[in-house]
Amino acid sequence: MYTLLELAELVNGDIEGDGALQISGVADLDHASSGDISFVASLKNSEGLKWSKASAFIVPNNLLVVDSPVIRVDDPYLAVAIIHNRFLARPFRAKGIHPTAVIGNDCKIDDEVTIGPHVSIGDRVTIGRGVYVHPGVVVEDDVCIAEDVQLKANCTVGYACKIGKRVILHAGVVVGSDGFGYATDKFGQHIKRPQVGNVVIEDDVEIGSNTCLDRATFGTTLIKQGAKIDNLVQIAHNVVVGENSIIVSQAGIAGSSSLGRNVVIGGQVGISGHIHIGAQAMVGSKSGVHNHIPEKTIVSGYPAVAHKLWLRTSAIIAKLPELAKDVRTLKKDVARLLAPGDE
Amino acid sequence: MYTLLELAELVNGDIEGDGALQISGVADLDHASSGDISFVASLKNSEGLKWSKASAFIVPNNLLVVDSPVIRVDDPYLAVAIIHNRFLARPFRAKGIHPTAVIGNDCKIDDEVTIGPHVSIGDRVTIGRGVYVHPGVVVEDDVCIAEDVQLKANCTVGYACKIGKRVILHAGVVVGSDGFGYATDKFGQHIKRPQVGNVVIEDDVEIGSNTCLDRATFGTTLIKQGAKIDNLVQIAHNVVVGENSIIVSQAGIAGSSSLGRNVVIGGQVGISGHIHIGAQAMVGSKSGVHNHIPEKTIVSGYPAVAHKLWLRTSAIIAKLPELAKDVRTLKKDVARLLAPGDE
Amino acid sequence: MYTLLELAELVNGDIEGDGALQISGVADLDHASSGDISFVASLKNSEGLKWSKASAFIVPNNLLVVDSPVIRVDDPYLAVAIIHNRFLARPFRAKGIHPTAVIGNDCKIDDEVTIGPHVSIGDRVTIGRGVYVHPGVVVEDDVCIAEDVQLKANCTVGYACKIGKRVILHAGVVVGSDGFGYATDKFGQHIKRPQVGNVVIEDDVEIGSNTCLDRATFGTTLIKQGAKIDNLVQIAHNVVVGENSIIVSQAGIAGSSSLGRNVVIGGQVGISGHIHIGAQAMVGSKSGVHNHIPEKTIVSGYPAVAHKLWLRTSAIIAKLPELAKDVRTLKKDVARLLAPGDE
Repeated sequence: MYTLLELAELVNGDIEGDGALQISGVADLDHASSGDISFVASLKNSEGLKWSKASAFIVPNNLLVVDSPVIRVDDPYLAVAIIHNRFLARPFRAKGIHPTAVIGNDCKIDDEVTIGPHVSIGDRVTIGRGVYVHPGVVVEDDVCIAEDVQLKANCTVGYACKIGKRVILHAGVVVGSDGFGYATDKFGQHIKRPQVGNVVIEDDVEIGSNTCLDRATFGTTLIKQGAKIDNLVQIAHNVVVGENSIIVSQAGIAGSSSLGRNVVIGGQVGISGHIHIGAQAMVGSKSGVHNHIPEKTIVSGYPAVAHKLWLRTSAIIAKLPELAKDVRTLKKDVARLLAPGDE
Repeated sequence: MYTLLELAELVNGDIEGDGALQISGVADLDHASSGDISFVASLKNSEGLKWSKASAFIVPNNLLVVDSPVIRVDDPYLAVAIIHNRFLARPFRAKGIHPTAVIGNDCKIDDEVTIGPHVSIGDRVTIGRGVYVHPGVVVEDDVCIAEDVQLKANCTVGYACKIGKRVILHAGVVVGSDGFGYATDKFGQHIKRPQVGNVVIEDDVEIGSNTCLDRATFGTTLIKQGAKIDNLVQIAHNVVVGENSIIVSQAGIAGSSSLGRNVVIGGQVGISGHIHIGAQAMVGSKSGVHNHIPEKTIVSGYPAVAHKLWLRTSAIIAKLPELAKDVRTLKKDVARLLAPGDE
Repeated sequence: MYTLLELAELVNGDIEGDGALQISGVADLDHASSGDISFVASLKNSEGLKWSKASAFIVPNNLLVVDSPVIRVDDPYLAVAIIHNRFLARPFRAKGIHPTAVIGNDCKIDDEVTIGPHVSIGDRVTIGRGVYVHPGVVVEDDVCIAEDVQLKANCTVGYACKIGKRVILHAGVVVGSDGFGYATDKFGQHIKRPQVGNVVIEDDVEIGSNTCLDRATFGTTLIKQGAKIDNLVQIAHNVVVGENSIIVSQAGIAGSSSLGRNVVIGGQVGISGHIHIGAQAMVGSKSGVHNHIPEKTIVSGYPAVAHKLWLRTSAIIAKLPELAKDVRTLKKDVARLLAPGDE
């Protein structure tokens, strides 16, 4: 339980209504009940203030008169996230190592961890305080896992990879499988190029379920601090993902490409190998990128072009039948105009 | 063993030939041997009736003279499915709980279940009669699994999710991992928005291997009765998939979008967030949909347009070099026509 | 340790420098240290010869004067792969069957295997010499696994599938889940078509993490010798992948389609069902293929066309706004030319 005032102070918001009001939880407009605080992210959703059962609301600064107690903020989504995380925060309760877990030799595992059933930990693995390893996880030799990491069910961390603090790997994630590299002989047979690098995931990274991050051929595939990667994403060998970059579901980043900081890669995007996406650039969903993208640029389409150009070309493509018809008519007209004796 | 007559009655088909003929199994034209019933789905495959070793065939009503014993039906595929399922139907034989399975506290598990090796079941889980939990499956706390469900190897069902009757989750499926939601602070850092909803999968749903279904931010991600989802599909938080809808491999449905009943989503399609695909609409493979789609509409392309328009624009795109050349020629001709002194 | 001469002989290369030089390992230019051999794949990277700490280099035949000891070859990538694999080659050291592994009845498992923790093996499974089954793997009944196979963590091999020699399945791979096949009744409900075939993976195939290969409806889904498949790829029922074909990440091959030998399928490509991609054809990344592709053809785009045509149409698409403007201008000019009284 927090008072409305305590929550407002947490997010530097302005209160309207009773600051002593007791708030017991967070929910959206549909699911809130009495005692909850809810939120309206923008003016167009403000109707919900009338019918929602929440006792208070987080609203944007520019929302007009409101009958209920509110906290006004610049960014309601951000405020809700901060407040909701506060409500959910709990001290880590270490359950220790489940008797069915198999732990290798020469590991350094903090006492304050939870390692679930049927987990397999290799040799010389380091696991920090507050780590929660869910059932069925496989951690290979020489992996280093920092504090407060969550490895969800059935994910795999390959040998010699490093996982930073507070990283979350969702179920089925594979970190450190071999990169896809071959040399082809004169018979057309593909000889595997050994993949002897690793994957390093820095602090505060979250990776969605069944996403794959391949180890580097040599060196390191690197996911920098605060990057967020959605489900079913492919990160190839030697890729570098910049700080706080976002990669939406089913996108793929080919070998040795790099993303600057705060890049946004849309869903189902493909980034070719050996290219660089500049800081704060955005790539629209389903785009295919073959060339370097300068920072702060927005591109879309396949091949990707400036997003605004793509919007225009897309609109024209939908009208190509008319355009083609116009050209046919023009050809006839001009042929008539050019033909001797017609004038 | 069934007689041809028994099988014909099962599918309301008309027999030609000996109804007392004993049939021992089902196979396609290539793999059938004596005793099997096989099938011809359409006239163009009817050549196979001559060389296949099957003893009888399921054929379309409009197929002409046939020498072999046949069952004539409107839809051979449907008839084969029904007959083949009849042949394969077996009473469920519960093997109980494997000694290596780890079961949490306060679970309600029917006696007639099979729970395989290295399964992890959380606390307060309900598992109905006839459920088969394959090896390596992880079921978290407070999950409810109805009768006759099959959870194939290494799949994961997150806390508080609900699985309806006769649902099949294929290997590696992840139900109920966190939705991909963040709020971004002034430093460009992404604050996780807690994902506290669940996933509900209604009866008779089948979900392909390594597909991911994220839990709702609040409320429920909902897969309605009879929906069929292929491998490697992404279902984001708060999505609703309508009754009997079909989603083909590698498609992705972004957050809060909804599909009506009997929608068909092609392979590798992307559906943006917060849009609705009307009942019985179809989205062609690889399309990208950014807008609501009315029911019974067929769309294709990226951005998606009416399928017929897409076919026409695609044909014109392949001829764009000619079109561009025509325009260049026209520009020269018209310039000449317009220029003073040329006439 | 090998001498430079020994390594040169391994790859039929020409030495410049001291053939007796002792080489202890392989690394790329960045990561090499004294004692290593490194490589320059093409002239444009030859700057690295100056600053890399490697003691010797593998270089292309056409590279000019080099100060360091080198092995000259036609294809440095191929030579590096061969030499690096030689350095990494180790005799297989069987660790036997981990006590937590669960093995079914009537299996034939060679003595010289490693079967890791929490592995589940079904009944009547055959496992050949030199096989390494990593933790969490599930192998169902009647599977046959040939010599020297590696099944990485948490992958699943469905009943009756066959795995050839030296095959590598990376973490999370699912072999032999049900194909996606239904018949739809008059109520719009989908009746599952039983999927009773299997998957056969021939020798020397490598399959990337979380890739899915569905079993055939009848018969066999077949991955032929030497094919290499990347992460998160979808192989549907009854697909045939030809010898030494390459399928890059997140591509999908729909049911009953077939690839000839040495085909290359780019990332995120979609291949429709029931089509054939001829030997040595290439399909550009993100393409969608609806028609048969003749051998040795290169196609791109969606719908796929000849790659060169696609390059041209892509360039024109980016200039469509200008083209449309030209047509508008032409229409005005021609209307003026055609109007009576204007001449």
